[in-house]
Amino acid sequence: MIPVLIVLNAGSSSLKFQVFDMVDDAEPQLVWKGLYEGLGGSAHFVVKDNDGAALDEMTWSSGDRIGHEEALMHLVSWLRSHQEGRKLAAIGHRVVHGGQSFSAPVLVDDSVVEALEALVPLAPLHQPHNLEPIRIVRRRLPGLPQIACFDTAFHQTQSDIASLFALPREMRDLGVRRYGFHGLSYEYIASTLRDYDPRLADGKVIVAHLGNGASLCALKGGVSVATTMGFSALDGLPMGTRCGAIDAGVVFFMLREMKLSPEEAERMLYTKSGLLGVSGISNDMRVLRSKAASDQDARRAINLFVYRITREIGSLVAALGGIDGLVFTAGIGENDVATRAEVISGLSWAGFSLHEAANSAGGPQITFGTGPTAWVIPTNEELVIARQTGRVLDATRERLAS
Amino acid sequence: MIPVLIVLNAGSSSLKFQVFDMVDDAEPQLVWKGLYEGLGGSAHFVVKDNDGAALDEMTWSSGDRIGHEEALMHLVSWLRSHQEGRKLAAIGHRVVHGGQSFSAPVLVDDSVVEALEALVPLAPLHQPHNLEPIRIVRRRLPGLPQIACFDTAFHQTQSDIASLFALPREMRDLGVRRYGFHGLSYEYIASTLRDYDPRLADGKVIVAHLGNGASLCALKGGVSVATTMGFSALDGLPMGTRCGAIDAGVVFFMLREMKLSPEEAERMLYTKSGLLGVSGISNDMRVLRSKAASDQDARRAINLFVYRITREIGSLVAALGGIDGLVFTAGIGENDVATRAEVISGLSWAGFSLHEAANSAGGPQITFGTGPTAWVIPTNEELVIARQTGRVLDATRERLAS
Repeated sequence: MIPVLIVLNAGSSSLKFQVFDMVDDAEPQLVWKGLYEGLGGSAHFVVKDNDGAALDEMTWSSGDRIGHEEALMHLVSWLRSHQEGRKLAAIGHRVVHGGQSFSAPVLVDDSVVEALEALVPLAPLHQPHNLEPIRIVRRRLPGLPQIACFDTAFHQTQSDIASLFALPREMRDLGVRRYGFHGLSYEYIASTLRDYDPRLADGKVIVAHLGNGASLCALKGGVSVATTMGFSALDGLPMGTRCGAIDAGVVFFMLREMKLSPEEAERMLYTKSGLLGVSGISNDMRVLRSKAASDQDARRAINLFVYRITREIGSLVAALGGIDGLVFTAGIGENDVATRAEVISGLSWAGFSLHEAANSAGGPQITFGTGPTAWVIPTNEELVIARQTGRVLDATRERLAS
Repeated sequence: MIPVLIVLNAGSSSLKFQVFDMVDDAEPQLVWKGLYEGLGGSAHFVVKDNDGAALDEMTWSSGDRIGHEEALMHLVSWLRSHQEGRKLAAIGHRVVHGGQSFSAPVLVDDSVVEALEALVPLAPLHQPHNLEPIRIVRRRLPGLPQIACFDTAFHQTQSDIASLFALPREMRDLGVRRYGFHGLSYEYIASTLRDYDPRLADGKVIVAHLGNGASLCALKGGVSVATTMGFSALDGLPMGTRCGAIDAGVVFFMLREMKLSPEEAERMLYTKSGLLGVSGISNDMRVLRSKAASDQDARRAINLFVYRITREIGSLVAALGGIDGLVFTAGIGENDVATRAEVISGLSWAGFSLHEAANSAGGPQITFGTGPTAWVIPTNEELVIARQTGRVLDATRERLAS
């Protein structure tokens, strides 16, 4: 029997999954991947093979009341009826916040669940959704090992100073510091740099994770030394609907002058800002690009996004003390030729020279000349979760055997 | 009779003043400068000549109820009894916020006062104190011209994109944008660059205004293209007691989890954070330097201050597309040899080479070699206010004469 892992990434009304074969010490092998969406309403399930060919799908009406629990149990049944010689060995979960305690993936037990629930105030819009499937599996499949893999953990290598806000010390004791996110993506990129250029693996690299969420990470020798996201998922770059870095004084203005409640202000900053807020059109870069020639506000949103990326790259060059390479990844980073071209054209001061044809072709290398290099590298957060889950399982087995 | 100007900088319990002779088209000449402090309590007045020698002083008990109005009228009487051949021609006021409307100093009239009062929500902790002496003078000396000079105006040359937050468009319509402050200081530095090196005046320069308030400004050809301060006086660099850039999520955490009111949260960020908050000792860099060898928290506060300055310099290098020069000014910038050395040592990636002896001697140039240069240049915000006030008076006279 081949042991398999499910990798889960749960949102408020969605459940993304991937299933990996785990054969001895080999890299986890993707078998199936899919998605439940519209949970709590009119739910839809689709599963594809590792080539992306659709294998199965299903739609429920809202009367069927398919929530996260029903979706999870449906997934387990689906697996059982398709697994042929495979056996579910564990579930690996994406958990956005590991706080100060979790600097590595961890086997979930009572005390871990309690510690992760205590972190909900640090990520109120993400953490509860990540924890729900963990609780469901503990109840419905109590013997199954679950491993929590954190978006924050990769940044725990950062120095005290890089993670410090200039706030009173009691704030730090309450957990208020720069954590950084997208760590599973950065860990994947760091793990693959040597395949592209050994000088990247050993050098000073900035990774631009540009998706609907967006951040930058400065890597030195593959280790995180600084990142643009801070305490919450709001800080740093503007995102699809999130504001990125704003002056704290803006929040007080929203409360006092605009008479918004904290919840209303927070909702605006998370869901109505960023590319959507500036353009007034869409949070989707593809839509904005299609309108940029004729619509001034679409152009403005794009220009702001690119400008803030170049500014934050400058800040991270300072954190690194120089730059050897820049990597674009995630939805926009992997697919938007124009964003890459505009960012690199704003970085000629740092010695980058865009290779236009290579950029149009999607890389991997998209610069020429003797300066620092830029690359397009597709990320794979699920593979990192599968790897981490496999390592924790192996370590647990060794501990039990010894 | 020589016309003289009073330059006023009013705080919550203080009134700083300088008196300038205005002879035709010549540069304003400082005659006296002084300070009222402890207003509303046990007030103290001191005045010095332009060499810094104390000429006169006075202390009142709190029972004397000396507030801003009494101090102002005392100053006018003191002037009358010392002016010998001089005549008070106008008062120039430092006003922190000019909003979107005021991109230049302005002669105060009813509509200007109304417009400046409307900006109080944008700078609730500074603007009311700046406006109070304007109202007092209009009431008590109604014929005297008053000119408002703005900390924001110098930054009005910045591009739309540089001043934009990634917020919904209605926020911009309410005046929520990056304004930037310390503009009177930056205008002074920009006006004097040619005296030090013409390449600075025409080139790409970052000015580090490091005082109890602190910010950086990127100048291209002497014009502001970007700055670290944003909407309020909280953003950007950590300051003596202010937090600098923090994640907006921290504010929501303070409100929801720490159960602070917006006023309590704001007070912490303005008055208990920055160097004071991190060190737990002092907001005064001189005190922190004296303790840094033995006290880990003092060292930590200094390290954070220097680290954030180097990060933000990187960001502004990106805004400028390179750097030709760096200028240190204001209290810490002009006087703290070690801060300058530590910042420049964090900028070797940009080609700076510190000249240690020149730095210890206070400059003006503190680098050597062929890379970009760094300088120490004392700022003079009051002189800029005097210049602006003189120009507005001249223009008003010409307009009335034509």
